[in-house]
Amino acid sequence: MPIIVQKYGGTSVRDTGRIKNVARRLCAAQDEGYQVVAVVSAMGDSTDELMQMAHQISAEPPERELDMLLSTGERVSVALLAMAIYELGHTAISLSGNQAGIQTNTMHTRARITAVRTRRLREELDSGKIVLVAGFQGVSPDEDITTLGRGGSDTTAVALAAALKAEVCEIYTDVDGVYTADPNVAPGARKLDAVSYGEMLEMAATGAEVLMLRSVEYAQKYKVHLKVLSSFSNQPGTWVREEDEKMEKAVVSGVTHTTDESKLTLLRVPDRPGVAATVFGALAERNVNVDMIIQNVSEQGTTDISFTVTQSDLPAAQQALDIITDELGVAYVIGGQMGKVSIIGAGMKSYPGVAAKMFKTLADEGINIEMISTSSIKVSCVIERDRVEEAVRALHQAFSLDEE
Amino acid sequence: MPIIVQKYGGTSVRDTGRIKNVARRLCAAQDEGYQVVAVVSAMGDSTDELMQMAHQISAEPPERELDMLLSTGERVSVALLAMAIYELGHTAISLSGNQAGIQTNTMHTRARITAVRTRRLREELDSGKIVLVAGFQGVSPDEDITTLGRGGSDTTAVALAAALKAEVCEIYTDVDGVYTADPNVAPGARKLDAVSYGEMLEMAATGAEVLMLRSVEYAQKYKVHLKVLSSFSNQPGTWVREEDEKMEKAVVSGVTHTTDESKLTLLRVPDRPGVAATVFGALAERNVNVDMIIQNVSEQGTTDISFTVTQSDLPAAQQALDIITDELGVAYVIGGQMGKVSIIGAGMKSYPGVAAKMFKTLADEGINIEMISTSSIKVSCVIERDRVEEAVRALHQAFSLDEE
Repeated sequence: MPIIVQKYGGTSVRDTGRIKNVARRLCAAQDEGYQVVAVVSAMGDSTDELMQMAHQISAEPPERELDMLLSTGERVSVALLAMAIYELGHTAISLSGNQAGIQTNTMHTRARITAVRTRRLREELDSGKIVLVAGFQGVSPDEDITTLGRGGSDTTAVALAAALKAEVCEIYTDVDGVYTADPNVAPGARKLDAVSYGEMLEMAATGAEVLMLRSVEYAQKYKVHLKVLSSFSNQPGTWVREEDEKMEKAVVSGVTHTTDESKLTLLRVPDRPGVAATVFGALAERNVNVDMIIQNVSEQGTTDISFTVTQSDLPAAQQALDIITDELGVAYVIGGQMGKVSIIGAGMKSYPGVAAKMFKTLADEGINIEMISTSSIKVSCVIERDRVEEAVRALHQAFSLDEE
Repeated sequence: MPIIVQKYGGTSVRDTGRIKNVARRLCAAQDEGYQVVAVVSAMGDSTDELMQMAHQISAEPPERELDMLLSTGERVSVALLAMAIYELGHTAISLSGNQAGIQTNTMHTRARITAVRTRRLREELDSGKIVLVAGFQGVSPDEDITTLGRGGSDTTAVALAAALKAEVCEIYTDVDGVYTADPNVAPGARKLDAVSYGEMLEMAATGAEVLMLRSVEYAQKYKVHLKVLSSFSNQPGTWVREEDEKMEKAVVSGVTHTTDESKLTLLRVPDRPGVAATVFGALAERNVNVDMIIQNVSEQGTTDISFTVTQSDLPAAQQALDIITDELGVAYVIGGQMGKVSIIGAGMKSYPGVAAKMFKTLADEGINIEMISTSSIKVSCVIERDRVEEAVRALHQAFSLDEE
């Protein structure tokens, strides 16, 4: 019998009514002839509530204990979901990450899956049960509970689909697929039928929140056929899979954006080897995620270096720069509030002039480009935050994404 | 180093403020030179809240899934408590029942502990950590999570104390020990310094709610020195231990009571072998706990049989009797709302006339005795519910328990 893995996020199991709804979907999938595995997140805001209690006790709770705490939320979800399935006359079993064989390394709060032992999963599936796995968690070689970090339940689902050689891994969320742009910003945005792993990776990295980067990487590595769809509708969703001939290679598949970029500029840095390494080494030590970096041409032995970080990383970045600029004897300035707009498309590789068209579109709107970065299937521009939505709409239209 | 096991109930960890308070107590015990193990219940009403969600989904949730659900509450408590201990500069580790080596049989929701594997507990203690064990839970041979039923955390604590050969097992609760009577009923009630296991068992069985019967049985079997005390004061509490010469053998140590008895009487039952077995077998099948039973002298080949059940078991008892009385062709009546008053004392064994004094005391108050049951260290009388408090006060005074 083919195996299907379905993952349901926190909004899909927010209350007992929605849990019953998910139970019906799982029973329907079994009735269609699948062996069914569901990976479930914690109910609604329950993880946030646990986190609040932890922070009432400690500003920096020990990570092993955070994992013990936060892993309970998904266990509650799977136990309740199992009860709901029994009520529908089907049989089910809830499994913790440990019971489901999700083995990880010992990096608490951001553990990596090292192996999936499928013995019990297969036994329970073969006995006719719908198997419900608590997402986001695993067990370390020390037999401690670990969690997988943000988007961890997606990763659990993809890992199980890979280990069980599932026919498909369906990611149920509160949107019904991947869109050409955020429909709240570009009213003409269309749902895509399919995107390639590469496109999905670039979209996730540049602001699309529908899937976490890491689960897409995992899916690409193990060639898991992913589908993103809504648990609140019966729309067909969006496939995420390998690029193939059948897949229409759009020059531009989508426009993504972010609005939480901060730009920092180091002024008149001595232009000698090792300076950039010192600066970005100091930022990395504080876990600051640097996105784009540009360095201007050297003038009289000095240069300016600009880079962007997310707004939430700004305080840590400033702390690092306060020290490092003192040591180097240079100044730095914090730029205005920035955003980023990106175009992504697998067909871009073989189409010259796409970047130029993007720059012209923004110029025609009078939008100044502060920084640019490109990959073979993506062009990103950092622009003023206030102009981001305008830019998304202009690009969506310029690349004919409004059309069917 | 001597080992101490401390158990904290749900009211002692009701919120993060109280969790910090427990953390201070545990650190103090470690500073006094103990290796410290704490067993912790779920926070306040959190178990009830989980149960409510389960019942929104299913009237009779599958028991394995209930255990998966309910066992999360204690995990939350131990994780938060570990964080609070780190904040105080000590080190700690939280362990699930499984991680703590609590092995049980497969009877979900009322599992029995079959073994305690202390390897990890000892390792963590020897590394200087305060070890926090999620109460009420264990793991079955199938590697499923089990729970131990009502009062399960007390049982966890006693089992760990026995397995680790702890010097003492302290049960922290919201009262500061075992009293000669409920102080809300008998204002002159005094806290006892010590009671024997036997007395504590009888007290627990006849209405004292401070300790669950099962944990006292376990303590008696493994000779664990128990102490009951309050987490909200620094009062010395009450020892529960073997009877010894030093222990003052009071004729009567305490007066206990219940107010939830219902009396049922089967009328003119044919007086032949097997009838009682049929009746009480039918009740047992429906899990009705029968407390006292009396059978009147036979008259013309028939007899009346009266027995008591708790109010909560009354509907199930009626269901059973409706069927069985039909079969036997007899009638039954439900008596009034009853209560039970009991006197308990290890010294009773060697003192004749204690029961007579009890009956006389009740008679002097004009309280009618409906049923009587005795053991070597206990006399219980079923009386009208409305007279129970009066009876407790009269007996407390008659047996000089008000005096120091």
